[in-house]
Amino acid sequence: MSLIRLIAPSGYCVNQTAAARGIQRLQDAGHQIEHQQAVTRRFQRFAGTDEERLADIHQLASLSPECDIVLAVRGGYGATRLLEQIDYSRLGHALRARTPVICGHSDFTAIQLALLTQCGIITFSGPMLAGNFGAETLDDYTWQHFWKAIAQPRFTLSWQNAAPACSVSGTIWGGNLAMLVSLIGSPWLPAIDGGILVVEDINEHPFRVERMLLQLHHAGILRRQKALILGSFNGTTLGDYDAGYDFNEMCSLLAERFSVPVLPGLPFGHEPQTVTLPLGAFGELKHDGGTSVLSVSGHHVIR
Amino acid sequence: MSLIRLIAPSGYCVNQTAAARGIQRLQDAGHQIEHQQAVTRRFQRFAGTDEERLADIHQLASLSPECDIVLAVRGGYGATRLLEQIDYSRLGHALRARTPVICGHSDFTAIQLALLTQCGIITFSGPMLAGNFGAETLDDYTWQHFWKAIAQPRFTLSWQNAAPACSVSGTIWGGNLAMLVSLIGSPWLPAIDGGILVVEDINEHPFRVERMLLQLHHAGILRRQKALILGSFNGTTLGDYDAGYDFNEMCSLLAERFSVPVLPGLPFGHEPQTVTLPLGAFGELKHDGGTSVLSVSGHHVIR
Repeated sequence: MSLIRLIAPSGYCVNQTAAARGIQRLQDAGHQIEHQQAVTRRFQRFAGTDEERLADIHQLASLSPECDIVLAVRGGYGATRLLEQIDYSRLGHALRARTPVICGHSDFTAIQLALLTQCGIITFSGPMLAGNFGAETLDDYTWQHFWKAIAQPRFTLSWQNAAPACSVSGTIWGGNLAMLVSLIGSPWLPAIDGGILVVEDINEHPFRVERMLLQLHHAGILRRQKALILGSFNGTTLGDYDAGYDFNEMCSLLAERFSVPVLPGLPFGHEPQTVTLPLGAFGELKHDGGTSVLSVSGHHVIR
Repeated sequence: MSLIRLIAPSGYCVNQTAAARGIQRLQDAGHQIEHQQAVTRRFQRFAGTDEERLADIHQLASLSPECDIVLAVRGGYGATRLLEQIDYSRLGHALRARTPVICGHSDFTAIQLALLTQCGIITFSGPMLAGNFGAETLDDYTWQHFWKAIAQPRFTLSWQNAAPACSVSGTIWGGNLAMLVSLIGSPWLPAIDGGILVVEDINEHPFRVERMLLQLHHAGILRRQKALILGSFNGTTLGDYDAGYDFNEMCSLLAERFSVPVLPGLPFGHEPQTVTLPLGAFGELKHDGGTSVLSVSGHHVIR
């Protein structure tokens, strides 16, 4: 059983019922939840003032010895404001000495990539308190896979897609696409060569996803990777104006333009069903033209 | 009277009535409009296939000697796809020999900044055929100011805002904020030091505008400028969730974070009333604490 500390560096948790349900579920499973006041904390659209949310981050440097999981309450917007003010040297020193499982996604991606870049700390892109653990119906796969990913030093994912066959290995990194792209040019985007980049987003029209992926391409970031894995991209409705342009059409353009293999269809992102991926871990990816198999290792696990 | 060539490197012109009205208005004012087929051209959500839209751009290298204005039909999405395929060396050679007035905004910003970066060509961020000249009610100021900006080698703009006093000079550049930010890391964002950066956007919530401006800050681009001028930022509705967070709150944060003066309120962007600004021209900006005055010079004008 774990001591789970909540962290809320992003948006105010408008769905308080979901957050309470998430806490209850985790407690029912035998875990202890600390820093619950982060759930109700609010300043404007944020989960507290910049100072309060920054303190949540800096608290990672002085976790109680029993705390083995740090869980983001939700996404939204707010992490970007904190990036400049984080004491990475203090955090890096403390977290390298003892790294808890730090898990979240969406807006939290900015913090995760900054910790990876500045401190070399692996965090997990996976479920959050309100959206996943607090969902009206808990997704069983999401729950099971989370506990597996943070407990097993090596685990394997497989999914179907029709990309050409390939076999590569490298550092797994990525997260929310809009957040990752918002770090281009900043000191908080990891300079990873030969990596396996995994991205997802929600409520972004395929043309916006295309523009973001083209920016990664134009900035020379994609060509330095060995594979691009696409997670969930949902939440928009196509209309008459699109006239046949859709996510698949976009993928065809990417396949033409990019030299790196593009593998869509990983259940990773804002959907109820999502895998948990350690950003900064080692990945071995084999695709036979029909099934992708990704083996993940090199991340720390809970005791 | 001018020979105006239309150009459509972005989205399909869904409002054909507006485009026809724009053509009629320009013709009524005595101008000739060529390449009208660009208005009705369509592939999916684009104003033609990538090849057709790219040909519109390359045609800038072989304009007829009488053509003195090139006008974008509308924005949307599509320019980003073309950036890699443009022959900048051919365009630069032809356009430096004889530079027409090239005008547009929104998605067209990507082409404009690429031409400035790769060819050193000044283009005008201003009205387009459908949205401005084809508006149900033509904005008189927009119309008058366009003809003034492209005919007078020096012109002056003034507007009200409450920023602290400042007096600076430098290269005027910018355009649509989302498009400009989408070029960070690419070879098409001009490396301008000591510039006056002018940005605008539509349908972007203040938190998204904040995130984009913070990216410019984090990437070190803002601190190399002498001033940041904010144009129109409209099109979103604030809700209960924002709880007091709005555009002005965002501006307060920017003023705290940025060392560069931030001057809001220039009528520049997607609104009916917009000024025409030559990107790459020389600007002298004086602000007395209540009124901003921007003198613009160094751009080419029509005969």
